[in-house]
Amino acid sequence: MSYKIPKTQIAAVVPAIGAELEVLKDYPVKQADELAPGECLVKIIATGVCHTDLHVKKGDWPIASKHPLVGGHEGVGTIVAIGRNTPVAENSVKVGDRVGIKWLAYSCLQCEFCRKGLEQACQSAKLSGFTVDGTFSEYVVSYVNHVTPIPEQLDSKAAASILCAGVTSYRALKYSDTHIGDWIVIPGAGGGLGHLAVQYASAMGLRVVAIDTGEEKRKLVLSLGAEKWIDFKTTKDLVQDIKDATDGLGPHASIVTAANSEAYSQAVDYLRPTGTMMLVGLPAAADLNANVFFSVLKCLNFKGSYVGNRQDAVEALAIAAAGKVKVIFETKDLSDLAEVYHGLEQGKVAGRIVLDVEK
Amino acid sequence: MSYKIPKTQIAAVVPAIGAELEVLKDYPVKQADELAPGECLVKIIATGVCHTDLHVKKGDWPIASKHPLVGGHEGVGTIVAIGRNTPVAENSVKVGDRVGIKWLAYSCLQCEFCRKGLEQACQSAKLSGFTVDGTFSEYVVSYVNHVTPIPEQLDSKAAASILCAGVTSYRALKYSDTHIGDWIVIPGAGGGLGHLAVQYASAMGLRVVAIDTGEEKRKLVLSLGAEKWIDFKTTKDLVQDIKDATDGLGPHASIVTAANSEAYSQAVDYLRPTGTMMLVGLPAAADLNANVFFSVLKCLNFKGSYVGNRQDAVEALAIAAAGKVKVIFETKDLSDLAEVYHGLEQGKVAGRIVLDVEK
Amino acid sequence: MSYKIPKTQIAAVVPAIGAELEVLKDYPVKQADELAPGECLVKIIATGVCHTDLHVKKGDWPIASKHPLVGGHEGVGTIVAIGRNTPVAENSVKVGDRVGIKWLAYSCLQCEFCRKGLEQACQSAKLSGFTVDGTFSEYVVSYVNHVTPIPEQLDSKAAASILCAGVTSYRALKYSDTHIGDWIVIPGAGGGLGHLAVQYASAMGLRVVAIDTGEEKRKLVLSLGAEKWIDFKTTKDLVQDIKDATDGLGPHASIVTAANSEAYSQAVDYLRPTGTMMLVGLPAAADLNANVFFSVLKCLNFKGSYVGNRQDAVEALAIAAAGKVKVIFETKDLSDLAEVYHGLEQGKVAGRIVLDVEK
Amino acid sequence: MSYKIPKTQIAAVVPAIGAELEVLKDYPVKQADELAPGECLVKIIATGVCHTDLHVKKGDWPIASKHPLVGGHEGVGTIVAIGRNTPVAENSVKVGDRVGIKWLAYSCLQCEFCRKGLEQACQSAKLSGFTVDGTFSEYVVSYVNHVTPIPEQLDSKAAASILCAGVTSYRALKYSDTHIGDWIVIPGAGGGLGHLAVQYASAMGLRVVAIDTGEEKRKLVLSLGAEKWIDFKTTKDLVQDIKDATDGLGPHASIVTAANSEAYSQAVDYLRPTGTMMLVGLPAAADLNANVFFSVLKCLNFKGSYVGNRQDAVEALAIAAAGKVKVIFETKDLSDLAEVYHGLEQGKVAGRIVLDVEK
Repeated sequence: MSYKIPKTQIAAVVPAIGAELEVLKDYPVKQADELAPGECLVKIIATGVCHTDLHVKKGDWPIASKHPLVGGHEGVGTIVAIGRNTPVAENSVKVGDRVGIKWLAYSCLQCEFCRKGLEQACQSAKLSGFTVDGTFSEYVVSYVNHVTPIPEQLDSKAAASILCAGVTSYRALKYSDTHIGDWIVIPGAGGGLGHLAVQYASAMGLRVVAIDTGEEKRKLVLSLGAEKWIDFKTTKDLVQDIKDATDGLGPHASIVTAANSEAYSQAVDYLRPTGTMMLVGLPAAADLNANVFFSVLKCLNFKGSYVGNRQDAVEALAIAAAGKVKVIFETKDLSDLAEVYHGLEQGKVAGRIVLDVEK
Repeated sequence: MSYKIPKTQIAAVVPAIGAELEVLKDYPVKQADELAPGECLVKIIATGVCHTDLHVKKGDWPIASKHPLVGGHEGVGTIVAIGRNTPVAENSVKVGDRVGIKWLAYSCLQCEFCRKGLEQACQSAKLSGFTVDGTFSEYVVSYVNHVTPIPEQLDSKAAASILCAGVTSYRALKYSDTHIGDWIVIPGAGGGLGHLAVQYASAMGLRVVAIDTGEEKRKLVLSLGAEKWIDFKTTKDLVQDIKDATDGLGPHASIVTAANSEAYSQAVDYLRPTGTMMLVGLPAAADLNANVFFSVLKCLNFKGSYVGNRQDAVEALAIAAAGKVKVIFETKDLSDLAEVYHGLEQGKVAGRIVLDVEK
Repeated sequence: MSYKIPKTQIAAVVPAIGAELEVLKDYPVKQADELAPGECLVKIIATGVCHTDLHVKKGDWPIASKHPLVGGHEGVGTIVAIGRNTPVAENSVKVGDRVGIKWLAYSCLQCEFCRKGLEQACQSAKLSGFTVDGTFSEYVVSYVNHVTPIPEQLDSKAAASILCAGVTSYRALKYSDTHIGDWIVIPGAGGGLGHLAVQYASAMGLRVVAIDTGEEKRKLVLSLGAEKWIDFKTTKDLVQDIKDATDGLGPHASIVTAANSEAYSQAVDYLRPTGTMMLVGLPAAADLNANVFFSVLKCLNFKGSYVGNRQDAVEALAIAAAGKVKVIFETKDLSDLAEVYHGLEQGKVAGRIVLDVEK
Repeated sequence: MSYKIPKTQIAAVVPAIGAELEVLKDYPVKQADELAPGECLVKIIATGVCHTDLHVKKGDWPIASKHPLVGGHEGVGTIVAIGRNTPVAENSVKVGDRVGIKWLAYSCLQCEFCRKGLEQACQSAKLSGFTVDGTFSEYVVSYVNHVTPIPEQLDSKAAASILCAGVTSYRALKYSDTHIGDWIVIPGAGGGLGHLAVQYASAMGLRVVAIDTGEEKRKLVLSLGAEKWIDFKTTKDLVQDIKDATDGLGPHASIVTAANSEAYSQAVDYLRPTGTMMLVGLPAAADLNANVFFSVLKCLNFKGSYVGNRQDAVEALAIAAAGKVKVIFETKDLSDLAEVYHGLEQGKVAGRIVLDVEK
């Protein structure tokens, strides 16, 4: 199979730290013969927009991205070229395959971390839409050893959100030391990441206490499998309400993605003794302030969980493909990205936003 | 076998919160026929003194003890009586047995936590020298389901310190997600808990970076199996020195017992990505202030580890009995306890203090 | 609360090895003041009948039971008395509580195995309907530290089968090294144990390949959550069919309860490399004959799983109480037991048999 | 750095199944420009000889090797060339590096097994000295993603035996579900694999019961860290002796490499309840015949452990480099190989044989 590859493309570019997004029509496309061994060129079909993209665009993180930068790290597309001399194995992706591009675009697969499957910690990792150009464009260069095959049953737009929000929440659950029948608290349960976490948790047999606000979100999360609901705006005592919902002892685990410190520190109070809080957000400035005395006395665990490795991505997609997880999203155009960012910043976006790049 | 039990005894008693310690000569002894089923009376041979005892005496913790109180929770003694109608199994302790009394004097063995072996989290737990009288006396009431048989090869004084400092450091290591060949950092390596942690870590095949100060402690910890030494008083950059000592990537784990917040927060900087800090101290007022962004990005784990369960105690003692862990301690009299507390408060005590109660 | 306890009762008794079952009307009942500390008297409401009971009755196992013997180890009833001087904790069962009696009637809670939660391996264990009288009677003596509280939502008859078939299949799944999305093969999926295994597996997110025979069982297991079906009577190549159903690589695990050696040895052929077979039956005479070369080359795991501990029982019941597992059973009278055994021996019993003892 | 590469070399070649070994002087060497991306050419310094090589030479396994074949899979050498266009990462090996070649020469690093770190189960794996030419030659083609850097402190000859016997015994121990203080039985403790297993076990804090025969081996294994010794030739009841040596309950684990079925089946009798036997040999014809009843009743585990993955190899070498494991070997020439095979077949080889290829 062979694809015709244009010289230029439409891409949403951040020219410099904190600068405004520009949608360029003549952003260059790397040609097939320019690809290094191990690289592939992917023609994007759809890409999700993540809160992380907004952080990167604003440059408010303690680490800096490349510039100019094409953001985006939840992309689904078709491999249209693979770098010459790329070593090929039986399971390697091929030109024509539909694949996903996630935040972790590349890891070396040779270092201590990669050998142990902790690819996120690879010191040579490349990050889509952060240290290398991402998916807010028609074509993107990615890496054959990290792109993820998309199961046939999954729609490209649905698959896009699984690649970051899905994988991240799935892995956090997988490493939360919980098992069937355990209670788990999910603050922000009605949000982009939360509504997927509710479904993955439910599919594993966990009992979910969903925290969010408003009647619409209440209905949504209960329909997705949550067993209990707490509205953080109307509760008089959130910690007590959580305990009351969970046999009086508190949940076995919680998955916290908040941007503010309070949400992390509260967990010390509500977690069941020996319980685990998974920290999964990348807020610009938030601290876990945990009292040592009670953290020790209650034998609590706080575990940072950062996106997922290749296997986590395959599993998260397979579970969605089996119909156990549905992504709720709104479709926009690539040219709407600046407006989407504006909405995210105002906190006005419900669910997940996916850009239809092919249109 | 039958023992003669006096009506009164010598005991070191804290009469009220913050009050001075009094050594009483007429503290009552519970008689054999007053013991409830499940209780036993232990004649103390030796008891360690732990920094925790000082907290309890001062009443500076966020939770309160009983009063008047006999402190002490690292005791070794002989069972001189067992409550009538105590159910007996093949493995039950018997009158005449030499046993240890640890912080966790009793747990119900019936609740969710006990059924899972997480006895420290039992909501019905009784704590020696805190919620029930402890080992700073000639006789103490304890519980047949939690006293720990002392291996023959172990001297009572050495065994005493294993029962708290030993078990606590051993369990922290056991749950630190490390294995043979991994790097572990032990701040306070020359102290009462630290010098045991160095030896347990070493016996498991971990590579130890010991942190403490002074030539004497340097020699000590290297002789106990530490591979690297950092003097926190003379280092110019502790975090950098730790990384340099551990392949540049930082240690796989650390065991932190400090009384101040800094020691906890530093771990975020020096831990190897995917590394684990075990929190094992019970400081009156200290916080783990962990930046969420880097805790997630580095996939760090912070785990509270609180003393140990019955199996941990058996294992910690067996390892010491096998000659792999030597306790370094100084022997004092029960009547010296006030003075020992004074020394602990001044930070002037090196190693572990054990009171010879039989003398 | 106080219950009137008769001196004699109806009980189904096996007088000697291999002898015929006798339903006696004057079997003695242990009175409240005859109970030792730690014992309780339970008035049986319902009891399941297990294939194991038939082995015990026939005496065809390599280890021998007590005689005369009242069999039965899946009983639900009400505690009508507790031995005087039994130590009581906050979580202890009380007179009037509805509880379950399982195969493992008692373990010491003190030995290495019990301390580790491996109560089934306790060398002082007492076994219902084997080394102590079981549940085929109106009253049975059991042990407060091992009877299992029955959740309110669960019917006594449904709960009965959970206490052995449920716990056994649940624990086997729990220790099968599988997680959400993995393939698991369940031979005998339509049987008493199998139909529960299918549901527990499904509730954990496992993908089930059910093996059994006949249209009725096919419909049943698919309705209970199985994803694939293989009829062992009509298949031409069972191993190949299993592989074909599981991506060509074979299942990640299987749960085997068969009475014949072949079912165990087949697993070496069909298991996915690195896969696990859980052995859960107690056949009178069957061997796992595993070729060492291929077991090593494929990195296979064979794990014996024997009933469950107290925590497993609590979890298995809670999952059923949450509506995730339904027991399919037929109700009979205690006096029908001989006939039920006959049916089991002929292989004519579908699903689980529960005896209504109260009637 | 650049190396001169000859056109031909000395190599020990098996021309066909069951044929005699021939030492050829004109075996071709693949030239630098003939290497595919991902391949490297290694100039061998030393190579171990393993019992597996003898199986391969004899062709007595149930799976067949390539022919003509250069055997050998424990090689240490210098990378003298790397295939052009091989993707390079920060941690990649370079020309001039001293590296090890192990049985698992290559795996795809893309499939489910590789993504999970179970590289031995990769269906595209290439095996040194079996499906691709191995290390019994002056030069060998291997794969940059699987060759293992040799720590500076390790002598090439010592490192050679670590690459198969060391890695295999280390991984078996790592996955044996044991921890510090547990008892482990090692039959064949004085042999090539056994004497390394004794040392790795000891370095992890396990208590070793060594089984072998003769005074010389007794002295050896006790000096290497074994705590107990049983001579299988003089024992009257091996199973009872093992139990007596391990608190009467049996060992927590055993590592079995035997060529005969009996050694595997015995483990069912001597293992401690809940214990684990690691199967690590690849005998031509041996079965694990485990009685199902007792395997279940005792909750036993049988786990096939096949060589090791890249991380296992790195760890096994690092532990040896730290001085905790010494290889006992005899040095021979490449031209002695036929004679070495003869000795192995006669059971006359003590310790490990290493061929000095550079000489």
